[in-house]
Amino acid sequence: MAMTTRFSRLQHLLLLQPRFHQSRVLRHPLTRSVMGSSSSFSSSSKLLFRQLFEKESSTYTYLLADVSHPDRPALLIDPVDKTVDRDLKLINELGLKLVYAMNTHVHADHVTGTGLLKTKLPGVKSVISKASGSKADKFLEHGEKVYIGDIYLEVRATPGHTAGCVTYVTGEGADQPQPRMAFTGDAVLIRGCGRTDFQNLVLKIAFVLIFNQIFTLPKDTLIYPAHDYKGYEVSTVGEEMQHNPRLTKDKDTFKSIMSNLNLAYPKMIDVAVPANMVCGLQDLPSSQPN
Amino acid sequence: MAMTTRFSRLQHLLLLQPRFHQSRVLRHPLTRSVMGSSSSFSSSSKLLFRQLFEKESSTYTYLLADVSHPDRPALLIDPVDKTVDRDLKLINELGLKLVYAMNTHVHADHVTGTGLLKTKLPGVKSVISKASGSKADKFLEHGEKVYIGDIYLEVRATPGHTAGCVTYVTGEGADQPQPRMAFTGDAVLIRGCGRTDFQNLVLKIAFVLIFNQIFTLPKDTLIYPAHDYKGYEVSTVGEEMQHNPRLTKDKDTFKSIMSNLNLAYPKMIDVAVPANMVCGLQDLPSSQPN
Repeated sequence: MAMTTRFSRLQHLLLLQPRFHQSRVLRHPLTRSVMGSSSSFSSSSKLLFRQLFEKESSTYTYLLADVSHPDRPALLIDPVDKTVDRDLKLINELGLKLVYAMNTHVHADHVTGTGLLKTKLPGVKSVISKASGSKADKFLEHGEKVYIGDIYLEVRATPGHTAGCVTYVTGEGADQPQPRMAFTGDAVLIRGCGRTDFQNLVLKIAFVLIFNQIFTLPKDTLIYPAHDYKGYEVSTVGEEMQHNPRLTKDKDTFKSIMSNLNLAYPKMIDVAVPANMVCGLQDLPSSQPN
Repeated sequence: MAMTTRFSRLQHLLLLQPRFHQSRVLRHPLTRSVMGSSSSFSSSSKLLFRQLFEKESSTYTYLLADVSHPDRPALLIDPVDKTVDRDLKLINELGLKLVYAMNTHVHADHVTGTGLLKTKLPGVKSVISKASGSKADKFLEHGEKVYIGDIYLEVRATPGHTAGCVTYVTGEGADQPQPRMAFTGDAVLIRGCGRTDFQNLVLKIAFVLIFNQIFTLPKDTLIYPAHDYKGYEVSTVGEEMQHNPRLTKDKDTFKSIMSNLNLAYPKMIDVAVPANMVCGLQDLPSSQPN
């Protein structure tokens, strides 16, 4: 029964175009009101970007802000509970206003920082995909956009590691950061990809989805994963299409590789997943879905 | 006697202008010959840049290449012996030609990868400051330039952590990467700086030198240090001028802070320094100075 549902959902996603539909837009109410002339800013003068690292779980957290907007609105992707104080210190020093604390998926290897961020900085909204089944303030579906100022992220469904995995991709167009940036979570890692044995998904379909949603982006698109264990920080679509040992194979070989990894049970999973299903903290009144 | 020499050297450097003299240029003979029209490339399409991390010593290695040049010449700053294979794999996958393996200084916390790189990739030249007293293929002095293709690094003397510490700064001008990038070694760390108790330098002069050589750069200059222990990867001159807890003080306070850190003896120093004084390997015939 569960398998059928998952299969249907993946099949449905498979029918979507790589360049997906315009749909519901998640926009912070304080932003965009005074940004009519933002196209005069170059993308580099508009976007403030930082990649941050949590050593124990080898997790990358990403900070993006539109510093051309008077509010300097910012978002964090995949914050970690242990580094929330560092992240907030940096956000404060840079004079940013944190609007969204987002996750690419329900992590199994660390506890998300979104819940803690909400307690320390009321007003921050937790964000995750609807397909994750997790609690959050805002849920995203494939094709939606998330704005901070005039910079936006597209949501692309890239299930495989989990059923609810999404990739956030910076917008298309001259007024958006160039080259584009894809925050792939565990869907595409540098020269690898996240394990796919958690939710018994149909691997051949997952493979095609990752390919269609990420490898159809321009080849110079920067790939920023949720983790790296070898000290790489970034790659590109072109590089992974050429050198990724799992994703350069055909879908049958991919299925065979991923089905035979025989990985150990993740040591943090019994703590991390229940906590992450409620955005990192079990009893936050503001963590209820809306 | 040693103190007098060091004091004289620092005083001499202090008299140099922040925008220093044009002087001897270190240029790879294979590069620049066919680069006459390179200014038509934007800086982003010309420079390939990667920051790489070695987790045990929290060391950053930097890869820079001019990918608009047919040879795709590249250099590494502060490679680590343990991650040489990773670095060479990446260089190979990206189709680059490694020309220089450079150090910002003689490290006390890890063994440089320059010696190992030379054994695995003959033709690579090891590079370090003359003031380091270390062996290498090429020695650099304050004010020199190092070219890969049409991209160059300026050498700026920033003693303090050691007497031979230099900062490598990308070039000035529209055909060079924008914003500029400063590879500061241990002279400026993110919200900190390297310990200064190794070589008994005159701290007030060291402080003024760091200030004059780094904090006179444009405020958006990216600061890429040799280490970070908190998961930060990059900062800017403007950010450190405002938030660095040591370098925002006056020189007397700086001296007082640095003189009272009471740090432990570095666990790797007895292995690392002797090895690094000969570029990471004791018996390489090609490691003799020239």
